Amino acid sequence: MANRRTSPPAVKQSTAPASPWRASRERVREREVKREAVIRAAAHAFNRKGYHNTSLDDIAAALDVTKPTVYYYVTNKEQLLFECFVAGVEQIRAAFREVKQLKVTGRERLNGVLRHYGEAVASEFGWCMVRAEEQDLSPAMSGHIKALKSEIDQGIRRLIREGVQDGSIHPCDPKMTAFALAGALNWIAHWYRENQSMTGAEIADAFVTIFENGLRPRAATASAARRATPRRAAAPRRAATRAGR
Amino acid sequence: MANRRTSPPAVKQSTAPASPWRASRERVREREVKREAVIRAAAHAFNRKGYHNTSLDDIAAALDVTKPTVYYYVTNKEQLLFECFVAGVEQIRAAFREVKQLKVTGRERLNGVLRHYGEAVASEFGWCMVRAEEQDLSPAMSGHIKALKSEIDQGIRRLIREGVQDGSIHPCDPKMTAFALAGALNWIAHWYRENQSMTGAEIADAFVTIFENGLRPRAATASAARRATPRRAAAPRRAATRAGR
Repeated sequence: MANRRTSPPAVKQSTAPASPWRASRERVREREVKREAVIRAAAHAFNRKGYHNTSLDDIAAALDVTKPTVYYYVTNKEQLLFECFVAGVEQIRAAFREVKQLKVTGRERLNGVLRHYGEAVASEFGWCMVRAEEQDLSPAMSGHIKALKSEIDQGIRRLIREGVQDGSIHPCDPKMTAFALAGALNWIAHWYRENQSMTGAEIADAFVTIFENGLRPRAATASAARRATPRRAAAPRRAATRAGR
Repeated sequence: MANRRTSPPAVKQSTAPASPWRASRERVREREVKREAVIRAAAHAFNRKGYHNTSLDDIAAALDVTKPTVYYYVTNKEQLLFECFVAGVEQIRAAFREVKQLKVTGRERLNGVLRHYGEAVASEFGWCMVRAEEQDLSPAMSGHIKALKSEIDQGIRRLIREGVQDGSIHPCDPKMTAFALAGALNWIAHWYRENQSMTGAEIADAFVTIFENGLRPRAATASAARRATPRRAAAPRRAATRAGR
């Protein structure tokens, strides 16, 4: 390098010189890519077979590598489960950071977070996000998971309070509302499979719309319903027709 | 018995004669009470320790009886889990039958079912209701559970459709809405513990209110918010005061 710096500027090189630092960065990046592949394979296996029925051998086999290769990226199966949990939860944490920058109402910020939350739970990391804590983990690991879950719960409650304060959310109990929203979203991991007709993003959007509207018709809908009265008044006639069949 | 029947009617007895049929009914009733106690003890143990970590010995010990006594009421642990599942689910099925008789809107019928649903999930049978299916059960048992869950899911979708039709429910996708509602309610089993400040019925009521209203303020609330504008306009001053502390 010292040589290169003192060489005459006239001598131009056709390609940029190979930097040992860049090579190192590339190695780090490559390791990161491989580590992600290990985590993704673990998430897939836990999701399909459950945590206790999955061995590091299974994960190594799925990646066509040896078990020591898996150990190069994670110290044990528990850490692997935690990494899967974090991979999902990080999508929600990123959403909190993102909406913080937006100049919108509390409800719109909350909706942004809920959409990412729903997508994360519908992703391959969903099972680990909602089931990690139940897997007889060490107290330390269990504590980490609880803390991250609590951070997200508190974040949702805060956005609900902000929405109620700025008038964009119907007055409600922030704790119960946060539990209801998170419960509905967490449950996606129990029924959603990737091969279903809707994508994770579409499910998340549908849920946000349901949360927003509630079951009781809106004023506009109510007047629409009044306009539709002749149709509804016809219902008994239809019932009579049915009964007469 | 034959003697009593042929005795002269003039001989009055101070108490009604003991009927062997009634005695039999009492024995049946007594057996039913004891069977319920076994199921309740199992639900408690599964809830606390998980299905796989609970043995019939544990349940017998909790009731202070021998294992053969437990076997007198259920054939195996799997059947015991199923009975716990049914004990919870039956509360919801009963609610469907009950609301069917009511001359109210679809939304009110749905709310009635959701209240009982929430209470059931917050009961000691909640864990078994939402977790039974995951416990590596026999295909036959798993099939029974799936069928009962599907019956409830379809029942909720039907009430949603009826509510949309009679104008008492905001137009929505019945399937996604049923999943969101059931998910929020099922999740209660993950966080609710009996010693909490709210009863199961209070939680269920709170959830029904949240589902009804939705997050977006209602017309009445919006006008209330407009009336409250001066208060909200004062917020920056309060913030300044806080900052100046």
